[in-house]
Amino acid sequence: MTLYLIGMGISGIRGISIEGLETAKACDKVYLETYTSPLEVDLNEVEKLLGKKVRKLSREELENADKIINESKELNIAILTPGDPLIATTHFSIVLDAVKRGIQVKVIHSASIHSAAIGESGLHAYKFGKMVTLAKLGDYPPFSVYETILDNKKRGLHTLVLLQQDLESGEIIYPDEAIKILLNLEKEQNKGVFKENDIVIILSRVGYDDCLKLAGKAVFVMNRIKRLKLCPAVIIIPGELHFTEREALKTYWIEER
Amino acid sequence: MTLYLIGMGISGIRGISIEGLETAKACDKVYLETYTSPLEVDLNEVEKLLGKKVRKLSREELENADKIINESKELNIAILTPGDPLIATTHFSIVLDAVKRGIQVKVIHSASIHSAAIGESGLHAYKFGKMVTLAKLGDYPPFSVYETILDNKKRGLHTLVLLQQDLESGEIIYPDEAIKILLNLEKEQNKGVFKENDIVIILSRVGYDDCLKLAGKAVFVMNRIKRLKLCPAVIIIPGELHFTEREALKTYWIEER
Repeated sequence: MTLYLIGMGISGIRGISIEGLETAKACDKVYLETYTSPLEVDLNEVEKLLGKKVRKLSREELENADKIINESKELNIAILTPGDPLIATTHFSIVLDAVKRGIQVKVIHSASIHSAAIGESGLHAYKFGKMVTLAKLGDYPPFSVYETILDNKKRGLHTLVLLQQDLESGEIIYPDEAIKILLNLEKEQNKGVFKENDIVIILSRVGYDDCLKLAGKAVFVMNRIKRLKLCPAVIIIPGELHFTEREALKTYWIEER
Repeated sequence: MTLYLIGMGISGIRGISIEGLETAKACDKVYLETYTSPLEVDLNEVEKLLGKKVRKLSREELENADKIINESKELNIAILTPGDPLIATTHFSIVLDAVKRGIQVKVIHSASIHSAAIGESGLHAYKFGKMVTLAKLGDYPPFSVYETILDNKKRGLHTLVLLQQDLESGEIIYPDEAIKILLNLEKEQNKGVFKENDIVIILSRVGYDDCLKLAGKAVFVMNRIKRLKLCPAVIIIPGELHFTEREALKTYWIEER
């Protein structure tokens, strides 16, 4: 039998592909995984769309997927995942364990914030360097994020900064906080990576009707979105901008007000 | 009215999302764009799924989208695109022109080879550097591709190499040719970027039932896929490998035979 990992895309279950939907409908058992992304997915809506019972995985079941892998010996199993499966390393661990036990795995891809954010920004995809995740590290400042942005900027490259937004644990960094963290690091490190007048892009709820895109000077953008608690959201620190990229930013550029 | 750009994902029309399908069905007019990717999309299958007439755009209509943009003033228009819309710069030009004329644009995202290839490889997404496209340049060797791989490798980062695979013009680079081109450049430049015993990953037809993934020494992989004319396909040149990444590569590793 087969273990299917099926992506739901970036805006709830309606981002699942036709192929993904039909596959899930035909499976003997369907699990829903919601731990690798801050997307909210409504279990009732999923069950209604699939016309069958769907069980939500606990974090523990996801990280120790032995039971599900064993079930896949006898049954066709689907795990619905946020975004594009496999981008979360947890998913690839499941693939590895399954393959080791001779179980066939098939992945049905869907939209990922990775490419969606790059596309929505209007910046050129081949001008992005290494991406990073800004996570809560207690009192420890995220030097590695700062250094990655520096390294990309030296090459004229853009940096996609994913934000830790773990709804369950409440470890959430909103984009205005992310900008603040990076500006504070700049004050301390002073390497010219990210100053108040440098450009930043924020992309919130890409794929949803209340999607919000803003580009502008860091300090303006930060002030504009303060207290908005944007989630899910990412930020982009641009490197050198091509004139067509500048044109694109104009479509969602903000000034102080 | 609204101009919708709707992604079809990476394996024909069945990669479209539920939201994308419903939106396209409700639009007054639907266009199909197939020029920004080597995916084959069957117009009849698209029309059958949507239950309506769909018109294939010529390359000229895509690049000078005035007519379609004007239509969007009066009608809800959908353009179905391969992959995730906006990753091709042509798509963002359409958005720019439309926004300038006060037309509302909405993008419905879908799978992109960008994230799908990274996921399928089992390599960690945040360890990829700048990506590149290897294109036919006549007799001129692709120095910039070579230099990008060098730059990524110096920092331990992986490189996703997209291949020019333009079915219409016949300008196609198959993955075995791509490996050969890079090995030849290495012989000439001798900077230790990509040698016969270095690891390469090829990913062909990701999302299709005949998907082929191979990892191994460059010379073995090249010989194994010679004359297979794999399309669409991408290659990945890994940088430093984490042990979990090595584990992942083992699931599709090949040796000489």
